[in-house]
Formats: sequence, C-alpha cells, structure tokens
Amino acid sequence: MEKWRAADRLLKFSSRFASAVNWNNSCKSKQGKYFYSVATTVHRNPLFSSISPDDISYFKTILGERGVVQDALALDAANTDWMGKYRGSSKLLLQPKNTEEVSQILKYCNSRRLAVVPQGGNTGLVGGSVPVFDEVIINVGLMRNILSFDKVSGVLVCEAGCILENLISFLDDEGFIMPLDLGAKGSCQIGGNVSTNAGGLRLLRYGSLHGSVLGLEAVLANGTVLDMLGTLRKDNTGYDLKHLFIGSEGSLGIVTKVSILTPPKLSSVNIAFLACEDYTSCQKLLLEAKKKLGGILSAFEFLDSDAMSLVLKHLDGVRNPLPPSIHNFYILIETTGSNETFDKENLEAFLLHSVESGLVANGVLAQDINQASSFWHIREGLPEALMKAGAVYKYDLSLPLEKMYDLVEEMRVQIGPAATVVAYGHLGDGNLHLNISAPAYDDNILAKIEPFVYEWTSKNRGSISAEHGLGLMKAAKIHYSKSPETVQVMASIKKLLDPNGILNPYKVLPSSLFSQN
Amino acid sequence: MEKWRAADRLLKFSSRFASAVNWNNSCKSKQGKYFYSVATTVHRNPLFSSISPDDISYFKTILGERGVVQDALALDAANTDWMGKYRGSSKLLLQPKNTEEVSQILKYCNSRRLAVVPQGGNTGLVGGSVPVFDEVIINVGLMRNILSFDKVSGVLVCEAGCILENLISFLDDEGFIMPLDLGAKGSCQIGGNVSTNAGGLRLLRYGSLHGSVLGLEAVLANGTVLDMLGTLRKDNTGYDLKHLFIGSEGSLGIVTKVSILTPPKLSSVNIAFLACEDYTSCQKLLLEAKKKLGGILSAFEFLDSDAMSLVLKHLDGVRNPLPPSIHNFYILIETTGSNETFDKENLEAFLLHSVESGLVANGVLAQDINQASSFWHIREGLPEALMKAGAVYKYDLSLPLEKMYDLVEEMRVQIGPAATVVAYGHLGDGNLHLNISAPAYDDNILAKIEPFVYEWTSKNRGSISAEHGLGLMKAAKIHYSKSPETVQVMASIKKLLDPNGILNPYKVLPSSLFSQN
Repeated sequence: MEKWRAADRLLKFSSRFASAVNWNNSCKSKQGKYFYSVATTVHRNPLFSSISPDDISYFKTILGERGVVQDALALDAANTDWMGKYRGSSKLLLQPKNTEEVSQILKYCNSRRLAVVPQGGNTGLVGGSVPVFDEVIINVGLMRNILSFDKVSGVLVCEAGCILENLISFLDDEGFIMPLDLGAKGSCQIGGNVSTNAGGLRLLRYGSLHGSVLGLEAVLANGTVLDMLGTLRKDNTGYDLKHLFIGSEGSLGIVTKVSILTPPKLSSVNIAFLACEDYTSCQKLLLEAKKKLGGILSAFEFLDSDAMSLVLKHLDGVRNPLPPSIHNFYILIETTGSNETFDKENLEAFLLHSVESGLVANGVLAQDINQASSFWHIREGLPEALMKAGAVYKYDLSLPLEKMYDLVEEMRVQIGPAATVVAYGHLGDGNLHLNISAPAYDDNILAKIEPFVYEWTSKNRGSISAEHGLGLMKAAKIHYSKSPETVQVMASIKKLLDPNGILNPYKVLPSSLFSQN
Repeated sequence: MEKWRAADRLLKFSSRFASAVNWNNSCKSKQGKYFYSVATTVHRNPLFSSISPDDISYFKTILGERGVVQDALALDAANTDWMGKYRGSSKLLLQPKNTEEVSQILKYCNSRRLAVVPQGGNTGLVGGSVPVFDEVIINVGLMRNILSFDKVSGVLVCEAGCILENLISFLDDEGFIMPLDLGAKGSCQIGGNVSTNAGGLRLLRYGSLHGSVLGLEAVLANGTVLDMLGTLRKDNTGYDLKHLFIGSEGSLGIVTKVSILTPPKLSSVNIAFLACEDYTSCQKLLLEAKKKLGGILSAFEFLDSDAMSLVLKHLDGVRNPLPPSIHNFYILIETTGSNETFDKENLEAFLLHSVESGLVANGVLAQDINQASSFWHIREGLPEALMKAGAVYKYDLSLPLEKMYDLVEEMRVQIGPAATVVAYGHLGDGNLHLNISAPAYDDNILAKIEPFVYEWTSKNRGSISAEHGLGLMKAAKIHYSKSPETVQVMASIKKLLDPNGILNPYKVLPSSLFSQN
C-alpha cells in the first residue's frame, strides 16, 4: 500500500510538472501481474512544445494521411512497451517511408521543440522505445528494404526497419547468417538492434555490433543526414562516428540505414550439456574450451542448480539430460564449424579430456537436432520458468568472470530464506542474468537487493547493464558503471548533437545533467 | 627543379606564417633517396604560444630533470618520422611516467596554448606522430607497465607505452596472443596502435581494435582523465566513448591505458601458396575459403604477377614455390586452429576441391615451418622489393572487393609504359596496397596518379586510408572518403573536446575547418 501512496504524492506534484512513474508501480500489467520496481520519476521538460493542429497538418504534407497516425488503438500499442511495464501518452505516431522523410520530420520537430521517441520493433526491456510523456513517436517500421547484399564480402546493406528474422531468412537463402540473434528476432528491427547495441546469442563467436556494423546512416536532431554507410572492413579516415550511434538508444540520432558484415553459414553444429561441481571448474572449462575448440566455439552458457530445479519444476516436458544427481552448475557448449566429422571428434575429445581431468562431473553430447533443441530449451526456458514461479526481480550484469558468482553467493546471504537467488547467463561473455525469485513482490526484499546489487557491481568494475541498455529504467543509475568525467563528456556530446534535447528525452543519461530552463 | 621553386615560394610566404612542407619534397632522406609527393602545406597557428624558460621550469617540477629532454640528438630523432619523410622542429620532448603526469602536462599546455604531439613508437606512415612545427612532443614510452592479465577471460590491461612485441612475448608465455600483429611490432606501442586503429596481419581473423579493445583511459586536452578502462565484453551503459579515441590519431586525447581482449594461442598453423588465373577466381576462392575453412581462416593475402616478378627479381633467395609458369594472381592462405590433424586435412580437402573446380590453377601446402616462412616472405618482402626497384608511389586503399582490381587495370591504362603498377594486399579485408613503381620520381607520373586514384576510390565508396590513418599527409583529403556533414560533426567534436586545438594540430582534419583567429 505504501507504493500507492507514493504514486499518489507524485500525481499531486504533477499539478505543476507532469510526472511519469513506471506504469506498473501502480498498475496491473497486461499479463495480469503486478510489477514493482524502484520508482523512476522524471518530470516533463516544460521547454518542449505540445502537438498543435498545425503540426498535424504539416506532418501530413510530408508523410501523407497514412503516415500520420492518431488512431487510439494504434497509439495505445505504440505507447506501451511489450512487457506492459512502461507506458507513455503520446498523441501522435509518425511512419516515415525513407530517410528524407525522417530528416524533414526531425528538422521540423527541432525547430518547434517537439520531443520525439524513435521506435523500431519496441522490444526493449528498459523503457527506451516508448514515450515517457507526450513525445511524438517516430516508427521506422515502413523502412524495410534490403538495399544490397554482396555474396563475396558478406556485406548486407538495409534500411533500419528490417525485422531481424527477415534478414536472417534472407541471408539463409544466400548461405550467410546475421552476426546477432535474439529471442525477440520476430519483432525487433535492425535499426533498434544497432541503436541499443543488442547482444544476444552469437556475441561470443561474432563479437559485438561495434565490430560487425561497418557503416550506418543516421539523421541528427536538426535533420542533417549523416552518411556513414561504408561497406568496408578497414577505413581509417577520421573519427569513426558510427560508434556514437551504436548503443546510444536513439538519443543522438535516428539510425535509418545499416551496413553489416555477415558471416557465412556453417553446416556443422554440435551441442553438449555438462555438469560441474564448482564455479572454479566452470571458469577453467571455459578457458580450456577457448583453447581446445579454437574458432568453432559458438556458445558457452551456464545455469546453477537453483536455475535447473526451477526449470524442471515449472516447464512441462523438460527433463535433465544427465543422470539424476544434483550438480551445482550446468554448462551448455555449442560449436559451429564447417566439417561435421572433424568438429564432432574435436568436441568429443575435448569432453573426454575434461571429464578425465575432473573439470566436468558428467556430460552428454546431443545425438540429433531434437536433443540439441531440448538442451537449448533448458537454458532458453529460464525466463518463462521464473515468471511461472512467482514474482521475480531481474538484473542483467556484466562482471569480471572470476567474481561473477561471488555476487550470487553474497546475494543469497543478503536475502536469506525469503527468496531464491537464481543465476544463469552467457558465461562466455561474462554476462550474468541474476534473478531473485520470491512468492510475491515485497518491498523488504527489494530493499535487500537494491542498491546492494548496483553497488556490488560498481565496486567490482562491472556493468549494471550488459546488453539491455539504460533506457528510462537505469538512466539515473549510470554513475554505478561510468565515471563522472565520462558521463559529463557524454552529456556534452548529447548537447552538441541535440541542443534542444528533443531526441528520446529522459533516457540514457540522468535528466539532472540537462538544464530545463 | 620546379619543386625547388615551389618550396622557395613557400618559404618566402613564411615570413608572415611559418610553413611546413613534407620534408622530402626538397630534401634527401636518410635512405639517400628523393621522395616526391603532392606538397602538404600548412601554416603554424599563430594563436599557439612558443616554449619559454618558465615553461621548462614548470615541466621540470612535474617530471624532474630526466623527463624534460632538450638534447639536440634526442630531439632530432623525435622530430623525424621513421621513413625520414616528415620532420618537425620541436625544441622540447616530455617523457611522463604516469597518467597523472600526462594530465598535469596537458592542463598546463592547454592553459598556455602550447600545442603538443602525442608520440608512441613513432612508426606511423602518414606524418601523424611527429611535430609539424614546434609542438611539444609528449612521448609515453616510459609508461610501459602491464597492469593485469586475466587468464580466464584473456583480458590484458597495460599502459600505453608497452611495445607491441613485448606484449606478444608476455602473452606467449601465458598461452595467448595479441589480436593484432604488425611489421613494426618491435617499436610500435599499444597506445599508438589504438590511437591509429592499427590493422595488420590478424584483422581477418580477430577483427579491428574497435572490437577487441574493451576499454581505455585517455587524458583530454584540459587534463581531465577519462577512465573508460572497462574489462567487460558487454557494457551497454551510455555512449561508448572509447571508440572516439580509437583511430583519432591523438587529436582528441592521449591514450594512457588500454584494456584488450586477447585470444588463446592456437597450436596448429597451416599455410598454402596458390595461383589463380583471373581476379574473379580470387574472389570466389575467398568466398569458398570463408565457408569451408570456417573459423580457422586467419589470412588471405594476394599479389599479382607484376608483384611476383618484382619480388623474384629484387629479393635474394626468394623463389616461386610453384612450378615455373606465369600466373596472373597468387594467393597466400593461412589457417590457425587447435587441432593439427583436423586442420591440415581440412585445408587439403579445400585445396583439392578448389583445384578440381578450376578456381585454383596450381598450389602448394607448406610442409614445415621453413617453407611456411618462405611463403610469407614473398608477401612481406614486397615493400622492400619495391624500394630496391626504384621510385615508388604508395597508396593504401580499401575498396569493395568486386571493384578492387578494376582500379589496378585502369591505373595501368592511365599510366601507360612509363611505370609499372604493382598490386598486393589483404584481399580478405578488402585492403589493396597499390604501388606505382618507376625508374625515378617524375611529376608527370604523379600527375597521372593523383587525384585520379583518390577520385576513383571516392567514386566507388572506398577509403583513401584503409589502415594508415590520415595524419598530416591526408588530412586535407578526408573529403574523398567522408561526407561534408560527417566531417563537420568530426570538427565539432574536436572543438568540443579540445577547444584550443592543442592536440596534434594540422593532422586528421583539414586545418581550414578551424579558425585561427
């Protein structure tokens, strides 16, 4: 009930400045669950204009009637994030069809001081892709052309609104793959992927988008089109500005086109599911896998025994592929290569050696695609199992590998018997998904988690957001991962490229850094 | 003689503004050859102060006597680039021992408007690491500590002055390798490598430094230390500012520490030397190699028949490993993996298939390390063979793969019989080293090459500097590879981070973008 009163106070305060709170601090989500998190409160920047009938008329001259959406149902969908956790109150959704239209929209919005939120597939997890207040939503989903593909170099050039899964299918026919893959691939768009520097399942093998994106085109707040759409692997001519737009969550410009290096599709995939008795063995196994499996290692995922118990309890049809015995850690290893026989023998030899040396307590190699898929299902089913288990507090952290599991153990001590601490993640990337599962949401539990988890991460030079970004959820928490001087330089670059602050306001950087007078 | 008169005119003009020309436009180099290139003329910014005795005293209080070098011999070395092509006239070389000293130096220089040139191993090829006029040289060579190495993650953290070869040796003992390797490794320093985004021999396999550098520390012009020294593979908390310092050639800040992801050393290396009859086959072979050799392909280099003839003629002890027959193209393929037997069989099967399908006319697989080294020597000996052959005009270009060799052929038509056009390079990276070899330097030849080569590259969306950077040599030519809007944003970022323009002036960006009043 305390939460309700807090929200009430905020609403009263909004008689002068409208305030936004995480929608689900006080509202029931679409899934019928209550979400509670530390309130993220920001005030609408009073310098921003509000939409007028003249604005609507102007946008129609640029985009035509169909590109200017005011329909309540469409707006409701575009105002709400996919978890039902964040909700804005925009009255206008614009759907440009090309870069020139994006440029004209932004030039106008900048001159009118109309705030905007760039939107792709709207699959983000931190409230970055929906309005906080009445920002104009610019959805690039109609910009979905593949512009070129070079079969020799593997360079794909496409518009920002291309859905990731469509690109994957297109490349599959050409014998290539995207260097990134995500659970949200059916909805997320490449422009959003690039703008949020999406991580996903292939990062261990193919690296981050800072490595595989060769070029991009972006439109600045004032409508200037920056053509950085190179298709070259090597280009040392001046500052590599594209990196500013990779991961800046639409706050420095709207990405309109992307050029990306895609790797050839390899035919041989092998998957093993293993058990280790301690975290040190998991680390050593990773090191050995990097050495012995050389260039074919494509995934190294881990889950602890609490995570395994949870999956076995809550997901139908899932069984432990190892003989019934409780192990402390489970590892999923995937290799992807070009020679079925060699790769399989290579992995078998590695596994045999790992068992003999005592690093691995037990293990099994998938014999067919169904078994392979059932191994992946254990790892990928964890978020669903957690949702079924009750309330869950979720954290996406990068930590130095040797300290990663210390946090899990300290969190268990900190929380006590009130909740279960469940750990899994991309061990190969140093990315821990830390989940605290409880029978119900409880402020006493939350108080034991935060700010402890952020402080611990900060103290150990970790990242409070490994792959999800900061968005609205963690904009004010950036200091846990970045030095004050670095944050100041970020703010000065934001002011340089977007002096009126119209691009995705209230996100990424603390609003306190920007004067609203 | 025309050149001498031009230089004379410039010197007269310098009665008001001192002028710098490429040293070897009118001077004999250390190697006893005359170099001619299109004159790069800039004027000393009159807003910069000159060194005073008070400045010297102040620097001694920070660095001690030994860190403040005014010795003529040492200054001469630090003023001259390693090719003997560029020469400055600095009267002061500073040698800080740590980040704090770099910070104090820059803070002072910024307040006094003393221009500086950051210097590492001074092995650059475009005049970026030596003064143009009297800039204070800040050499970070004394900052050479390895700060940490994590054997599990492979993350190395070290100071900027560490020599690349020392890092390679250190890692070798630990079972790891650096993700980059260069001919200049015995002298070049990691801070310089990062600041120039060095490419080199391992880029095909391990990608660029934008992918493998996990973090860095840099000092801004005003002395602010930016701690971005993360050691995490994934960190999506705000703008990834480190990328601004990778490849900005010391013009935005001085890199003082680097955190880099190093791959495990793999035991199995195989090298093949092949011949193809046409450029289309070379491209197809690359595509096939990427598919069939999957994760083990580590080099794909090419040279044309003119390049091969040159090497055979001018380098002692080099012979064509293939049966005596003239082929149009030669390819060197290297694989690096973890299993000697598997990898060799894999490469052999690939080569057999390539010969059977007609892509490869002939080929040989190195049977031992001596043979492997002799194959590499053909490719690596090319710069030396070119020097021995006479005058040489060198261009380092990135081009779309399918068009790369068109430039070579058009250049042959353009030049006619007056000179030999020799092509080789990192085909796997789309990086062409285009060399025009002539009996002597000749303005008529140069006039046929430039601006043709830059215009052709620009028209085909290539890069006029694939891996060498712009430095002083190509600062004014940035527009051939970058759009005006992009260059403007670069200039505004330069002004934001270095408002007095003291950091490596006259380099990277055209001086005309910066007011000197």
